[in-house]
Amino acid sequence: MKSRTFRRKQSKVGLAPGTLVHVGEKKAEKIVIRAWIYNNEKLIEKELQTVEECQALKDHPDMNLWINVDGLDKIEVIEKLGSYFGVHPLTLEDVLNTGQRPKMEDYGSYIYTVLKMMFLDEEIEEIIIDQVSIIFGSNYILSFQERAGDVFNPIRERLKNPASRLRKNGVDLLAYSLIDAVVDNYFLILERFGEEIENLEEELIVDPMPDTLKAIQKHKRDMITLRRSVWPLRELINNLQRTESGLIKETTQIYLRDVYDHTIQVIDSIEAFRDILSSMVDVYLSSLSNRMNDVMKVLTIIATIFIPLTFIVGVYGMNFEYMPELEWRWGYPAVMLGMVLLGISMFLYFKKRRWV
Amino acid sequence: MKSRTFRRKQSKVGLAPGTLVHVGEKKAEKIVIRAWIYNNEKLIEKELQTVEECQALKDHPDMNLWINVDGLDKIEVIEKLGSYFGVHPLTLEDVLNTGQRPKMEDYGSYIYTVLKMMFLDEEIEEIIIDQVSIIFGSNYILSFQERAGDVFNPIRERLKNPASRLRKNGVDLLAYSLIDAVVDNYFLILERFGEEIENLEEELIVDPMPDTLKAIQKHKRDMITLRRSVWPLRELINNLQRTESGLIKETTQIYLRDVYDHTIQVIDSIEAFRDILSSMVDVYLSSLSNRMNDVMKVLTIIATIFIPLTFIVGVYGMNFEYMPELEWRWGYPAVMLGMVLLGISMFLYFKKRRWV
Amino acid sequence: MKSRTFRRKQSKVGLAPGTLVHVGEKKAEKIVIRAWIYNNEKLIEKELQTVEECQALKDHPDMNLWINVDGLDKIEVIEKLGSYFGVHPLTLEDVLNTGQRPKMEDYGSYIYTVLKMMFLDEEIEEIIIDQVSIIFGSNYILSFQERAGDVFNPIRERLKNPASRLRKNGVDLLAYSLIDAVVDNYFLILERFGEEIENLEEELIVDPMPDTLKAIQKHKRDMITLRRSVWPLRELINNLQRTESGLIKETTQIYLRDVYDHTIQVIDSIEAFRDILSSMVDVYLSSLSNRMNDVMKVLTIIATIFIPLTFIVGVYGMNFEYMPELEWRWGYPAVMLGMVLLGISMFLYFKKRRWV
Amino acid sequence: MKSRTFRRKQSKVGLAPGTLVHVGEKKAEKIVIRAWIYNNEKLIEKELQTVEECQALKDHPDMNLWINVDGLDKIEVIEKLGSYFGVHPLTLEDVLNTGQRPKMEDYGSYIYTVLKMMFLDEEIEEIIIDQVSIIFGSNYILSFQERAGDVFNPIRERLKNPASRLRKNGVDLLAYSLIDAVVDNYFLILERFGEEIENLEEELIVDPMPDTLKAIQKHKRDMITLRRSVWPLRELINNLQRTESGLIKETTQIYLRDVYDHTIQVIDSIEAFRDILSSMVDVYLSSLSNRMNDVMKVLTIIATIFIPLTFIVGVYGMNFEYMPELEWRWGYPAVMLGMVLLGISMFLYFKKRRWV
Amino acid sequence: MKSRTFRRKQSKVGLAPGTLVHVGEKKAEKIVIRAWIYNNEKLIEKELQTVEECQALKDHPDMNLWINVDGLDKIEVIEKLGSYFGVHPLTLEDVLNTGQRPKMEDYGSYIYTVLKMMFLDEEIEEIIIDQVSIIFGSNYILSFQERAGDVFNPIRERLKNPASRLRKNGVDLLAYSLIDAVVDNYFLILERFGEEIENLEEELIVDPMPDTLKAIQKHKRDMITLRRSVWPLRELINNLQRTESGLIKETTQIYLRDVYDHTIQVIDSIEAFRDILSSMVDVYLSSLSNRMNDVMKVLTIIATIFIPLTFIVGVYGMNFEYMPELEWRWGYPAVMLGMVLLGISMFLYFKKRRWV
Repeated sequence: MKSRTFRRKQSKVGLAPGTLVHVGEKKAEKIVIRAWIYNNEKLIEKELQTVEECQALKDHPDMNLWINVDGLDKIEVIEKLGSYFGVHPLTLEDVLNTGQRPKMEDYGSYIYTVLKMMFLDEEIEEIIIDQVSIIFGSNYILSFQERAGDVFNPIRERLKNPASRLRKNGVDLLAYSLIDAVVDNYFLILERFGEEIENLEEELIVDPMPDTLKAIQKHKRDMITLRRSVWPLRELINNLQRTESGLIKETTQIYLRDVYDHTIQVIDSIEAFRDILSSMVDVYLSSLSNRMNDVMKVLTIIATIFIPLTFIVGVYGMNFEYMPELEWRWGYPAVMLGMVLLGISMFLYFKKRRWV
Repeated sequence: MKSRTFRRKQSKVGLAPGTLVHVGEKKAEKIVIRAWIYNNEKLIEKELQTVEECQALKDHPDMNLWINVDGLDKIEVIEKLGSYFGVHPLTLEDVLNTGQRPKMEDYGSYIYTVLKMMFLDEEIEEIIIDQVSIIFGSNYILSFQERAGDVFNPIRERLKNPASRLRKNGVDLLAYSLIDAVVDNYFLILERFGEEIENLEEELIVDPMPDTLKAIQKHKRDMITLRRSVWPLRELINNLQRTESGLIKETTQIYLRDVYDHTIQVIDSIEAFRDILSSMVDVYLSSLSNRMNDVMKVLTIIATIFIPLTFIVGVYGMNFEYMPELEWRWGYPAVMLGMVLLGISMFLYFKKRRWV
Repeated sequence: MKSRTFRRKQSKVGLAPGTLVHVGEKKAEKIVIRAWIYNNEKLIEKELQTVEECQALKDHPDMNLWINVDGLDKIEVIEKLGSYFGVHPLTLEDVLNTGQRPKMEDYGSYIYTVLKMMFLDEEIEEIIIDQVSIIFGSNYILSFQERAGDVFNPIRERLKNPASRLRKNGVDLLAYSLIDAVVDNYFLILERFGEEIENLEEELIVDPMPDTLKAIQKHKRDMITLRRSVWPLRELINNLQRTESGLIKETTQIYLRDVYDHTIQVIDSIEAFRDILSSMVDVYLSSLSNRMNDVMKVLTIIATIFIPLTFIVGVYGMNFEYMPELEWRWGYPAVMLGMVLLGISMFLYFKKRRWV
Repeated sequence: MKSRTFRRKQSKVGLAPGTLVHVGEKKAEKIVIRAWIYNNEKLIEKELQTVEECQALKDHPDMNLWINVDGLDKIEVIEKLGSYFGVHPLTLEDVLNTGQRPKMEDYGSYIYTVLKMMFLDEEIEEIIIDQVSIIFGSNYILSFQERAGDVFNPIRERLKNPASRLRKNGVDLLAYSLIDAVVDNYFLILERFGEEIENLEEELIVDPMPDTLKAIQKHKRDMITLRRSVWPLRELINNLQRTESGLIKETTQIYLRDVYDHTIQVIDSIEAFRDILSSMVDVYLSSLSNRMNDVMKVLTIIATIFIPLTFIVGVYGMNFEYMPELEWRWGYPAVMLGMVLLGISMFLYFKKRRWV
Repeated sequence: MKSRTFRRKQSKVGLAPGTLVHVGEKKAEKIVIRAWIYNNEKLIEKELQTVEECQALKDHPDMNLWINVDGLDKIEVIEKLGSYFGVHPLTLEDVLNTGQRPKMEDYGSYIYTVLKMMFLDEEIEEIIIDQVSIIFGSNYILSFQERAGDVFNPIRERLKNPASRLRKNGVDLLAYSLIDAVVDNYFLILERFGEEIENLEEELIVDPMPDTLKAIQKHKRDMITLRRSVWPLRELINNLQRTESGLIKETTQIYLRDVYDHTIQVIDSIEAFRDILSSMVDVYLSSLSNRMNDVMKVLTIIATIFIPLTFIVGVYGMNFEYMPELEWRWGYPAVMLGMVLLGISMFLYFKKRRWV
């Protein structure tokens, strides 16, 4: 997760800006292009075999066009698609480079937004971070994903419903819906984190182990990663709201305000988790000290009781010729009794000091 | 408290924005709708049996109407109420979703504010956080609570007094009064926190236990939660003050400034508590170290006094044939005396080092 | 000090805004009202027996009027005074509520400022925080204190001097002088803190005790309190400088800039003290560790020297029949010598390790 | 790295501003001046023997001129070059002083930017920080480096290609390309850091040593240095974007936005590394405590098992005449058995406490 | 250093603003007034015996006048000088009060700046902080220092050179030069700090002592002091750059930008030093823990090897009548051998655990 981000430009350093290179792991076997052409009357959905088919789709002036691309490996496909819709080479470079920071850029004839989609891979129990690029103009929208994901499926379902708001509005509302779907999924991730942190807290109280600290640190670091994906979203949506571009209609603004609120909530939760995780480190360190204290107390009690006693028996183990006590009839029981009394008084002293 | 916030959107992910779903625990058995219709001459208060009755209440052009809804479970009730007053679906979605961040939104014909009401449940000795939504237009105000609460009772009493300022002014002053009531209750919560923190401090001085740290951490976390509820209030009220909407009259602005000051005071107190709790962790950790020091000193004193003495008695316990001291008449008392002197000088050394 | 702030609204929760209640401890036995009527020619000073006398004082159009009230217990007195000068109920509420945050409010016909006066009560060796409210209009100024204090005495003296700038200028300069007097006293408090912190530092070097940490924490907390009183002052004076109210003349602005600089200096000092106190906690904790190290070293030296020796004497205390050394003539001295050599070499080893 | 920055002005204090002195280590043996004169039709590249040759190169009104200077030792060369192009003495002073903070200054007829170039010296395995100054006017660009570096080589290659964007545009695009090349190299440095930090983390888990902490601290400090070089870049590029100078064409702005994004990404990574390194210190400190706990446990187990046993054998080593047990036939085996049982029960107790 | 700042207003509290009192230590035996009257043709330098001579110097309309005052004890001298040039009483108050925060104030007919001059007193090896006040109008400049210092000497030298920029420009450039000289000296101070911190770091690695921590803390505190002197400079110079006063010519602005950059560099270095010093505290604390670990290991090794052995010899020191081993011929050597083997295996165990 982390290392990918830092390794971002490796294969690009030294190339001219705008040179198209796919930077990132190969995540999809092949590239899949699907298109939806719709207005409030009809909807055509088709999977394209070649990118050239896209060109024909453009010729529906009164219909909206959504082209979704899964997989970024075939550079020439992305390039052709870009050229059909007049996309700037720098935009295409950003689409292909999966180490982008979420951002929104207004290129006049279209708006480009890039964000980070997160979803739980239930099989490998891990969080996947994929980059989603959304390019939308007056009546077309292009979306690019690193692999076939299912975050957008509910939107596709809604699109099929002729009464849905999506069908009655332009592509700007669709763009909003895609962003909203991405942000909504963050809540699922946060929930999962919340559960894991609760488990960690219980572990911390019951039996803190070095592994507990490792888990805390891992979560802290995950929070750093998450934060880097979500913080810039705030500015992204803010910019969408304030843009003077005519591509976003007034009616869509109210929805952007809604997704903005959600983003703030996600950021709030991340900050709260960070605070909580920091306190957990304190608790862990203090539990180490407490445990050390316990160990030391046991040692001290044992040593403090028996060391003086051992001294006493040592005294009567000396071989002096003139030690009158040794010959007394009750010397042995008297010494034993004295030692028992000493032991008990020591114990009571510890009791008073609350060590036992 | 915490987990609820993070679990917020769970049952919503994938739905179209504006779809009404109640997200949150069920807190009320049934939904209760009460209405107050008033101007400076008369006041009518009634509990409505069905939501349809509301529609009739709207037809009093020269009177103010306050409809208070306790319980958010019946979505269709909320929906109908919303439709009577022309409330935007996104607003209703926010009313029903109890994981909102406090905010204010100006929808033109009405202003929507959502805030967090906190009150002490004296029975279970716990702080309850409920969401309150306030929607007010030119002469109506709708308020939604998660359950029947009593924070607004004093306002209802004041409303009955024909001479009160509330009766002589519009619903904007009533809206302000509701917000003010919510903020005033925060002081009660903070007071309770203040007392608990004072108790904790005493505990910290007298006898710090691992439980003390747990309590400190719990309060730190409560502060994080509290802060998330109160911080956005600042912006909320600020926005109310600056809004260009005609719904808030000039005369009400001066009152908003007052509640703004109170909010800042609450935030100040929270920050101060956070600082104090952080110092308490330091004190706790240092008290652990101090205690360890004490334990170690006892061990060291005992060991340092008796280990050399035990060595000496060991010497005279050796079985060499030629050990002239063993046969001396005063050997035994001399050794005993020497050991006493050694013990005393050790003790004085520790005294000098301030270990005793 | 602290608890008062947090308990502020207790007796007020549920009341209508603008209801006059005195919130705070009773600090003065009775209320004292003193008036100064002055222009650059003459000065009349009198102590008023009843609040009604104030009304007559207003009728000096070409003179400035300063009414100073010590003690806030008699609500009806404050209320009447307010009504004579047309003071808004919310202002009076703030005057009476001693838990205010320093602020400045422009009510059009008058400006209201509230600040925190601090002075040393030399008898009980404690810092007293009292609230001062200053209300000034075009030619009158009302000041309210919780008790009879002496911070303003120098100003009263200066007022008696017909050549003083105060006499030649309006009440805005007097208002500035009062604020300046309050801020000047902060320097005295900081000085005292500075001395105490220096003493603490010495203590920390010579002999750090748990009490030292407690004192550090107490000062940290005092700094939090102080900060809450002083930080808002910055904004208060800033607002006074920027206000478009005609009540503050151009010539007074230059003086406000001066008192603003002083406030910044106070804030600077507070922040510096906070930093210094934080480092002191570090030093304290490290001194605990150092001391533990010292204790451990003594234990280790004693144990490491004597445990092996005790083993050796134990060997020759065994009762085996065939132990040839026991019968040797020089066995005993040889063993003793060997043990002395072992002890010395151990000691040298510790010396080398710098433990002695 | 660090000390150089702090020693910056040493040889300059007391001189008039604008006096040219080279401040910094001598890094290059001799000064190398290379020139490229180009438009979209032709490109002339030549290495200049004397600085005077530059003057002639200026007389190509329809061509762009890039003069690159490696080495800053010959002040008179820099001075002459500056005078040919009308560069302000303060600019030249900054070019020569290698302790500059990255910044951009608009001098009207030219724009001056100074940045920090970092590259890995693979031989000595160290990061080199060199200062690069770029001065560009309407059709000339001067670049100054501390030594012959290879960060700009790819740009030189691209320049040779007549179809490249560089050849078709003005020197502002070349200036952007140089800045972009510098920023791109930061990613390489960050990658290297990322790898080293990953290694450190593994070390921290497997076997943390004092050297691990030293390495963490070294990286923390490197991050401080890096941050100081990169943070001001943000403002630099921002200023380039916002400048009203006609020297930067509209078409170049879009590229500046791109390099701005990269800078933010670099800053993001640095901040993330700082957070990670801080957590690593926590982990290191807790591993120290854990290890101490382990040591203490071993000591406590051994001491707690054997000290009581030693006491018991001491008892039967006493020389009392009347000790009946000593004469029992099975006394010895019984005591031995008792001790074995005591040892086992102790061990089980530790097992229960999870110390073994 | 520190205490002086906090004691600042002591002797002033209660006085009217604008009352002239010298607050600060007496640093100069007597007051020295020197004047330079210059234009680009001639320069007259003279030391004045009485302040009254200044009045005459004003009558050179086409020349610039610089009056430098060393020592602030004679209030009447400062007062007279102020009155000759129409300086506001509040300005003079600030000149005399050496606890000022660096600031710039535009009084219309003149600009007042106050800053902190720092220089190394090589004799007592200490950093001296003195306050410098600079008042400049259209053609005069007054500078006040607490004592005769040598920071401005290079400027005086430059002034003697008729070709220098100072002679050809107005007093605003001279004012800039004085500020620049003060800022340049900060680099010398930082350099010295840099060296001391490097020494401390070496000490920290080789042999950290409690004194090392004390030195770190001292430097941290020095940084706090330094920061308080330098931070406000940023705003000071910023205000000079933005002032709409005609007293600063356009040509001087470019130089102010330069000194602004230097100030930022100084602030950067201070922040970096603070970060470094904070990490050093971490290293120090961890070295304490490491050392404790080492001590504990020695103790544990010795105790763990010898305590069981001592038990064994204790067993054969028991006086039971029936202990067959005691009578065996090879009993003694067998036990000795067994113990050697036990000791070796213990040692190998510690070796495995990496404790030896």
